[in-house]
Amino acid sequence: MNVLIIFAHPEPNSLNGVMKDLAAKTMRDNGHVVKVSDLYGMHFKATLDKQDFTQRKDETIFSPIAEQLNASGTGSFTEDIRDEMKKVEWADLLIFQFPLWWTSYPAILKGWFDRVFANGFAFDSSKDKYYETGLLRGKKAILSFTTGAVKDAYSKNGPHGDINELLKYIIHNTLELTGLEVLSPITIFGPSLMSKEKVKEELERYKERINSL
Amino acid sequence: MNVLIIFAHPEPNSLNGVMKDLAAKTMRDNGHVVKVSDLYGMHFKATLDKQDFTQRKDETIFSPIAEQLNASGTGSFTEDIRDEMKKVEWADLLIFQFPLWWTSYPAILKGWFDRVFANGFAFDSSKDKYYETGLLRGKKAILSFTTGAVKDAYSKNGPHGDINELLKYIIHNTLELTGLEVLSPITIFGPSLMSKEKVKEELERYKERINSL
Repeated sequence: MNVLIIFAHPEPNSLNGVMKDLAAKTMRDNGHVVKVSDLYGMHFKATLDKQDFTQRKDETIFSPIAEQLNASGTGSFTEDIRDEMKKVEWADLLIFQFPLWWTSYPAILKGWFDRVFANGFAFDSSKDKYYETGLLRGKKAILSFTTGAVKDAYSKNGPHGDINELLKYIIHNTLELTGLEVLSPITIFGPSLMSKEKVKEELERYKERINSL
Repeated sequence: MNVLIIFAHPEPNSLNGVMKDLAAKTMRDNGHVVKVSDLYGMHFKATLDKQDFTQRKDETIFSPIAEQLNASGTGSFTEDIRDEMKKVEWADLLIFQFPLWWTSYPAILKGWFDRVFANGFAFDSSKDKYYETGLLRGKKAILSFTTGAVKDAYSKNGPHGDINELLKYIIHNTLELTGLEVLSPITIFGPSLMSKEKVKEELERYKERINSL
């Protein structure tokens, strides 16, 4: 299958970078074709703005959702957005690899969703195409991330609360909204507090999971 | 009191822009002092990276959380980050004004949190300063946002689920984590689907709420 890894960590030698490389190698060893969008490496523009459109529907007021729908029809997104859309169209599986910052994606990945999962491309507000009729149906996605805090801190009685509640919301309202089938997330909790041996074990577990995809 | 409005919409004449201006005017009319961080207007850098630091603790590998803690001690954040930190320190109340994109902030505002709510400034991982001991305690915050979908779509049985579940998580793990006291959010659901009269009513309701702060 065709696999797109969307990678969002500023340090290539971080654990997230290691996970991205391990996923790419494992997938390739299993005969899959892999592309990587290294958002930091690409200096991906994080901010959705007027400059995303080579042609405007309405020059008097900038409505992102209306301009995205128009650009999806006329092909007037800037090249960086079109390149990412082509990769998404090509892919059977999207792997998002990132550190959880402020209970969400790093801004550069949030901006990837803001700009690439555009109205008319990932969903269609004018034709009510969401969820079961989302425009990315038939493809799969998986969130793969690290956290700063340990696992217990993200439990129901931990200081940060049950992370599954958050994930349920993100998965449903971002990924499933576009029709993607979402596989259960891969998380390494608190790796910076782990021994090297424990991190190695976690990477083995990670590799097994990637192998099973 | 000192009020900082953090505004994140690419169109100054959007409803979000109108809400920001109305909040600023209402607050000033009530004798408060208001500053506005217009993130799009300022071309605020959304992406946390190595360039955020004028001096590094470790040049061999870039760990954001470690470099932030170091920069908080040595004052080696770049000027744009220091300017925002000074405004946060000055403020008694933070108002975040934004459109909900993909059930979260626009990337430019997510990046503001990634970069400004830094380790050693908003919390301290080395001294376990979170929540009750968060470094921004004594200040208040409020989320003020618009949604694309109508209110019913964000109810328990609506397609997007109960938005309060999401908000609870964001509020607790981002704002309360830093010690901020968080007031209940202000939301205008689905304004693009409303009549002009209904939008006017919503703005009246908004002004009343701002008056009560």
